[in-house]
Amino acid sequence: MGKWTTQNDARARRIESGSQYAKGKVVMGDQVTPFLEAVLHPGDRVCLEGDNQKQAQVLAQAMMDLDPARIHDLHMVQSGIVLPEHLDLYERGIARKLDYSYSGPQSLRITSMLVDGKIELGAVHTYLELFARYFVDLTPNVALIAAVCADKDGNLYTGPNTEDTPTIVEATTFKGGLVVAQVEKIVDKVPRVDIPGDRVHFLVETGKPFYVEPLFTRDPGAITPTQILCAMMAIKGIYGPYQVQRINHGIGFSTAAIELILPTFGEKLGLKGKIATHWALNPHPTLIPAIEAGWVQQIHSFGSEVGMEHYMAARPDIYFTGVDGGLRSNRAFCQTAGLYACDIFIGSTLQIDLDGNSSTVTESRTAGFGGAPNMGSDPHGRRHGSAPWLKAGAEAYPDTPAALRRGRKLVVQIGETFGDKNVPLFVEQLDAIKLSQKLGLDLAPVMIYGDDLTHIVTEEGIANLLLCRNADEREQAIRGVAGYTEVGRGRDKKEVERLRQRGVIQRPEDLGIDPLDADRRWLAARSIKDLMLASGGLYDPPSKFRNW
Amino acid sequence: MGKWTTQNDARARRIESGSQYAKGKVVMGDQVTPFLEAVLHPGDRVCLEGDNQKQAQVLAQAMMDLDPARIHDLHMVQSGIVLPEHLDLYERGIARKLDYSYSGPQSLRITSMLVDGKIELGAVHTYLELFARYFVDLTPNVALIAAVCADKDGNLYTGPNTEDTPTIVEATTFKGGLVVAQVEKIVDKVPRVDIPGDRVHFLVETGKPFYVEPLFTRDPGAITPTQILCAMMAIKGIYGPYQVQRINHGIGFSTAAIELILPTFGEKLGLKGKIATHWALNPHPTLIPAIEAGWVQQIHSFGSEVGMEHYMAARPDIYFTGVDGGLRSNRAFCQTAGLYACDIFIGSTLQIDLDGNSSTVTESRTAGFGGAPNMGSDPHGRRHGSAPWLKAGAEAYPDTPAALRRGRKLVVQIGETFGDKNVPLFVEQLDAIKLSQKLGLDLAPVMIYGDDLTHIVTEEGIANLLLCRNADEREQAIRGVAGYTEVGRGRDKKEVERLRQRGVIQRPEDLGIDPLDADRRWLAARSIKDLMLASGGLYDPPSKFRNW
Repeated sequence: MGKWTTQNDARARRIESGSQYAKGKVVMGDQVTPFLEAVLHPGDRVCLEGDNQKQAQVLAQAMMDLDPARIHDLHMVQSGIVLPEHLDLYERGIARKLDYSYSGPQSLRITSMLVDGKIELGAVHTYLELFARYFVDLTPNVALIAAVCADKDGNLYTGPNTEDTPTIVEATTFKGGLVVAQVEKIVDKVPRVDIPGDRVHFLVETGKPFYVEPLFTRDPGAITPTQILCAMMAIKGIYGPYQVQRINHGIGFSTAAIELILPTFGEKLGLKGKIATHWALNPHPTLIPAIEAGWVQQIHSFGSEVGMEHYMAARPDIYFTGVDGGLRSNRAFCQTAGLYACDIFIGSTLQIDLDGNSSTVTESRTAGFGGAPNMGSDPHGRRHGSAPWLKAGAEAYPDTPAALRRGRKLVVQIGETFGDKNVPLFVEQLDAIKLSQKLGLDLAPVMIYGDDLTHIVTEEGIANLLLCRNADEREQAIRGVAGYTEVGRGRDKKEVERLRQRGVIQRPEDLGIDPLDADRRWLAARSIKDLMLASGGLYDPPSKFRNW
Repeated sequence: MGKWTTQNDARARRIESGSQYAKGKVVMGDQVTPFLEAVLHPGDRVCLEGDNQKQAQVLAQAMMDLDPARIHDLHMVQSGIVLPEHLDLYERGIARKLDYSYSGPQSLRITSMLVDGKIELGAVHTYLELFARYFVDLTPNVALIAAVCADKDGNLYTGPNTEDTPTIVEATTFKGGLVVAQVEKIVDKVPRVDIPGDRVHFLVETGKPFYVEPLFTRDPGAITPTQILCAMMAIKGIYGPYQVQRINHGIGFSTAAIELILPTFGEKLGLKGKIATHWALNPHPTLIPAIEAGWVQQIHSFGSEVGMEHYMAARPDIYFTGVDGGLRSNRAFCQTAGLYACDIFIGSTLQIDLDGNSSTVTESRTAGFGGAPNMGSDPHGRRHGSAPWLKAGAEAYPDTPAALRRGRKLVVQIGETFGDKNVPLFVEQLDAIKLSQKLGLDLAPVMIYGDDLTHIVTEEGIANLLLCRNADEREQAIRGVAGYTEVGRGRDKKEVERLRQRGVIQRPEDLGIDPLDADRRWLAARSIKDLMLASGGLYDPPSKFRNW
């Protein structure tokens, strides 16, 4: 017990208390809740592993039974608020404060709880930003994580879904924190050591796998001709001329359409081997046809995707895999790759304003942005050149001497002018501003700021914001691809035509694309079954996507 | 042998060839060079571990004896070019291409070799940027790394100098690459598993430690009154008003001065607990007095520092430490922390131009920048608020509605107007531009761009560039603190006075600091011996710093 060892001393006491309910490192099956009550302290910073895919759901459920008189005021620091239990903790008075990144399925409920003051919000981060704070001012006291299996020494196998785990464990275990892992079973020897046992203090054997959501599966059957038109424009108008090889795609049907027409439309343009060779990407099933056609050299992944396990294991030239034969994902490194080693981020959003600011937040939904703000930002610390980056920089800063001219990351929003339920993509003001007022936030939850955005692709055309020389031109360029939305109808037609003459706006016909040619025949796979067949039967889609 | 398993198949052949020279994973002592000839192939991408501190020097020396007729055209992808051997490889025709980050001690020679075309340069990166590319388009085929010890299964203990190793190994081993580690000795059980054995293919037992340079040790005895004056201004004019708690300090005497006057000058200002509490920082010995005085809550480190081992092991509440009791450093995570979780970067440079661009490169020296461009850039992907970040944003963007107004990272250059050998800090044009012309580079090697720089501190005062509204004001603000350099003498005196009225420029007297009061009595330690004494004898300075 020393003045400078209070954290390690506290951990030693946690281990001593917890060991009453364990044999060695293994917590006794019916003692998980009393165990947690023994190792947790009120006010602890706790990471209950939950990201957008993988969930330590058994530990989450066990926390439901904690006595709030004993364990309360926890400060949860975790990338995903995904399970109902993640919010139940606040209803029950066990947790009080929250710092997180993503809350897709809980976005409605979290917003109403924030409005009602049931959660004290720290901030909504990007993944990499939250990980950064794990090492500075949000270091967890206790990490409750998930793995596939463990040996009795605590060596963990996380399987394809390694994701956040190494980062959480490193920040916690090396700063006096306690690491507890749920595993399906204890084995003699793990197939691969994803986390060394000396970083792990307790194991909870659950008899069932951790929960994973197939978040990146898009059924090609749902892709519309308009999405295909946008995809054709993105390839011919952006990927081709900028020679984009290193790519991150956001989630959505528009980017799935791009992936699916690479081996058809991209092939016809003669772009194979010239674009889309290196990826920071979750294992999108819709990329299978391009991989099989030899378009892709390498993919590093944030996480895994349900059903892709056997396919990835059979394609180690493409994916990162380990001695067990399966995928090794790593969210921290893949986010870093997306930030600094990719030349383009292309994704979708719900709203874009007249400055080009965009957000997926609406007045009632605080979904968080996961990795998009990180990937979709221009990294000022980048110092290596590449063809797309230099070309974008030359377009953006024509008056800067070349030697002092930085490049620019391509940051592209792609989408139909009217989205789901005919809601316009373009707005005068983001709903995020109203939400920030309602919640008293310092900052409106903007996903990608206008100053980082370089292109917008809609069915009406491509707006190249790099070529705009002032705010008025930007506004008209945005209006000029906003179609029949109110924002689109508010355009200055002459100015938009001038911008088109200058190549700031490009219509499909300017790119030599006939909108009538944009149909589903371009899709290299038109259904989930096609994807399965393209994979040689290796892709095993989750049952909810099987309709044959 | 399969169409999709060429990388894993190639690795299996490398292991088979290498095993002729090994017993299990352990390469036979006199067989290291033939072993390397067996596992390396011409054209391989090779990471020979070398960062700014830690070096796999035995493996580097073994590579000197390779037959260039057999092993040639290697593409070296490593963060540091530090040892003479790193460049000898090119002289001998073994290596051809280079992607790197830092070349401090070799900066003169690397420049002349680049000019002579003896090295084909990829790019000069920041550390984190190079790590990012390890996962995308610069993945090593072979990693030659360094650890303290290993067990026969290949589990590695890296000790306090973990640094780049986990990142290099992860990128290499999970993408079909081969990992070879030099270790001082093979032991029965490692004190801590820094790298799991199933990621490591061969071990070379060297009987001596890997080489480490004490790069972050600054002798307080060499700190000048002018540096103390600048440090006082930084604390009173920046750290205090912005309430800066999360900090990264660059290397140098100016930042060492700040560290050393926190417990004296900072204490007098009543700032203890309010500033400088959380750090992403190498283990600077000059921070010992502030730590002992209770100023510091937490430090995460990129690497270790020679002589600090026992001190850090005795202060686990401050540093990240493992089950062995010693420091666990991690360059990738600490760079991420410096990027996204710190509110200020403050460092020194050799030249600043009239736009605020700065560089440590001169016409004859390509030192590389290590982490500075990453730390010293405004991260556009950041989404969490903090007092300093919001205040800086409000100063920079007064006309943007608050909800849509991003914050700004504080990026500060601190230094005397005339540096070593009376060379002026301020220049009309960076030497980096001439160097880029000489080498035919796409980009001049700028360390920090003017658009990221927020403040300059010299003995003449502080220039707050956030408050400048156009390029002319910026130029005059810079000239206004440039002293008697040519740039300083070229100032528009009236305009500089106007900027001072507006608080854009602050003189020492504007901050209530008497330059005559800036003397060495403020230093909480005035010598290396004082640092040792302040640590209670735990800090064990390298012999070259011991002058008592």
